[in-house]
Amino acid sequence: MEQYNNITLDMGGGGAKSAEIIKEIRKILGSTGKWKNTGDDGAVFPLNKDAMNRVSTEWDKLVFTTDSFIVDPIFFPGGDIGKIAICGTINDLAVMGARPIGIGLSLVIEEGFPMDDFKKIMKSIGKISKTTGVPIVTGDTKVTEKGKIDKIEITTSGVGLAQNIISNGGAKVGDYIISSGDLGEHAVALLASRFNYKTKIKSDCKPLNKELEKVGKFLNACKDPTRGGLAANLNEIADKSKIKIIVDEKNLPYKKEVVAVTELLGLDKFSLASEGRFIASVSPENIKKVLTILKKFNSEAKIIGRVEPSSAKAMAGKGVYVKTELGALRKIEAPKGKLIPRIC
Amino acid sequence: MEQYNNITLDMGGGGAKSAEIIKEIRKILGSTGKWKNTGDDGAVFPLNKDAMNRVSTEWDKLVFTTDSFIVDPIFFPGGDIGKIAICGTINDLAVMGARPIGIGLSLVIEEGFPMDDFKKIMKSIGKISKTTGVPIVTGDTKVTEKGKIDKIEITTSGVGLAQNIISNGGAKVGDYIISSGDLGEHAVALLASRFNYKTKIKSDCKPLNKELEKVGKFLNACKDPTRGGLAANLNEIADKSKIKIIVDEKNLPYKKEVVAVTELLGLDKFSLASEGRFIASVSPENIKKVLTILKKFNSEAKIIGRVEPSSAKAMAGKGVYVKTELGALRKIEAPKGKLIPRIC
Repeated sequence: MEQYNNITLDMGGGGAKSAEIIKEIRKILGSTGKWKNTGDDGAVFPLNKDAMNRVSTEWDKLVFTTDSFIVDPIFFPGGDIGKIAICGTINDLAVMGARPIGIGLSLVIEEGFPMDDFKKIMKSIGKISKTTGVPIVTGDTKVTEKGKIDKIEITTSGVGLAQNIISNGGAKVGDYIISSGDLGEHAVALLASRFNYKTKIKSDCKPLNKELEKVGKFLNACKDPTRGGLAANLNEIADKSKIKIIVDEKNLPYKKEVVAVTELLGLDKFSLASEGRFIASVSPENIKKVLTILKKFNSEAKIIGRVEPSSAKAMAGKGVYVKTELGALRKIEAPKGKLIPRIC
Repeated sequence: MEQYNNITLDMGGGGAKSAEIIKEIRKILGSTGKWKNTGDDGAVFPLNKDAMNRVSTEWDKLVFTTDSFIVDPIFFPGGDIGKIAICGTINDLAVMGARPIGIGLSLVIEEGFPMDDFKKIMKSIGKISKTTGVPIVTGDTKVTEKGKIDKIEITTSGVGLAQNIISNGGAKVGDYIISSGDLGEHAVALLASRFNYKTKIKSDCKPLNKELEKVGKFLNACKDPTRGGLAANLNEIADKSKIKIIVDEKNLPYKKEVVAVTELLGLDKFSLASEGRFIASVSPENIKKVLTILKKFNSEAKIIGRVEPSSAKAMAGKGVYVKTELGALRKIEAPKGKLIPRIC
């Protein structure tokens, strides 16, 4: 590619300059694996030979997801908008029990966006694609006039194949509620860099497909606490599974520094977003196995609560509660009011 | 849903108001068909029962595509940003020979965007989804602060199943080049409404899956002339098929009003975008059959040129040429310079 310092409008116009930047993007992003991408409008995956070999596998459910990312700032401690976009889509497939097989990458870039920043973001996507083995297989690149978008917006879509779907509605009385690691570091890292607040906290942004491929089959429910955080996840699981969840205040998965920032800014820690964690409901017979595996990926993985019978004494019906160290129960509602904007 | 006049930031925050607007969107968009969408992060398609019934079908290739739409204005004669987004993705799958099975819909909306306009756009998507039978199966909704995006940006992604892929590289010497209808009306309609120029031309935006399902198996190459128009399509086909295409000036697929606007504004008609047309390369043995079928969908469908041997006398090698009414040959290059921005 010719040397350009900035993104120009005609890189999104569908002409020769579009072709040039797409070539450059594809070079940075690397192989498309088993997908055939001939520069047509889509990419082709040969289901018959690979995924549908019924003799050895029953990975016969197609899972499809999409997410747009409008992050501010676009570079932050622990990641950037590119990393969060590819991880977000890989994780949305992984928490459902699907093995991601391909990612679609659609970009809207502001005219004049620095080419160096653009390549940094593409490299960050390429790196996650390589380490996870999930190829970027199709895409689109549009450029809009200055002031019509804030720097860059990325939409990733993903397809995956699953043997069994992990739903949010499968939690059962007696299950343990676990977190795959400490929560809220993504939101705090973004907020801190937005306000130039000094902290050691980095975004927790990372792909979860490898750990979920190992433990997925042992989970009754699973969800990643992105927008809306733990409060949104647990309420969704409680609601769909028609059960009651009680989490223990002394086991809450928040680092001291994270709690300090939420207290400083008057934020609710339960609704802080993470981008590389999951919450799951696990039966007593599987809990040891699951934690042993997860601790290899993240030593912070732990039990944070339990699914209780909703008839239990002195407790309201369904929903999510936190048990304070003095034994009192406080309800955790699904986030209602204004949440931190542009966190993912 | 409670009555709101405008989109608010917390409709994209992942909390209760997000859930409300997603519910409203899903209500407008209608059924997800065979896809199971339980409000998890993705939608699930049961490949084993439906698509993979090998006894009756060999639709065993998975096709995946994605596109972002930043259209100005968002409402125009003949359509709106919603219609163009869903048609664009359905068409990207259809021109490859795939039967679209599901669409992902990812929205980024500016805070304060009028709720009535938003619902109008969703209804427009829902209508195409219903008439084509292609369900919206998964999605995402983000809201950004005022001034950080221009009104609304839509990214659609799509998955489809194909028996045989129609590539751009399959055109053969002797083939006829056809257009499924007159071209450039989408670009002219958008430009005209941008500049308040009075014209009867409406956008040609429409889904192509039904006509392509009927003729797809008879096409050697196929492409839809969106960004970059006929010039981009023919050059791509000529390039990938390693052939020479000659189109006839007297058969060019442009209405008089379209040509008039291009002359007025100094635009190249060959690079005008359409959003409901395709260009194809068809063998002599199939040409009659294909045109008979296509004329039922659009009486303007016609032969516009021919694939010629590149050794033909008095002609340069590969590439795309227009033969003037006086018999001279002029090369049509792939669009290079600045194209009309935000046309799709």
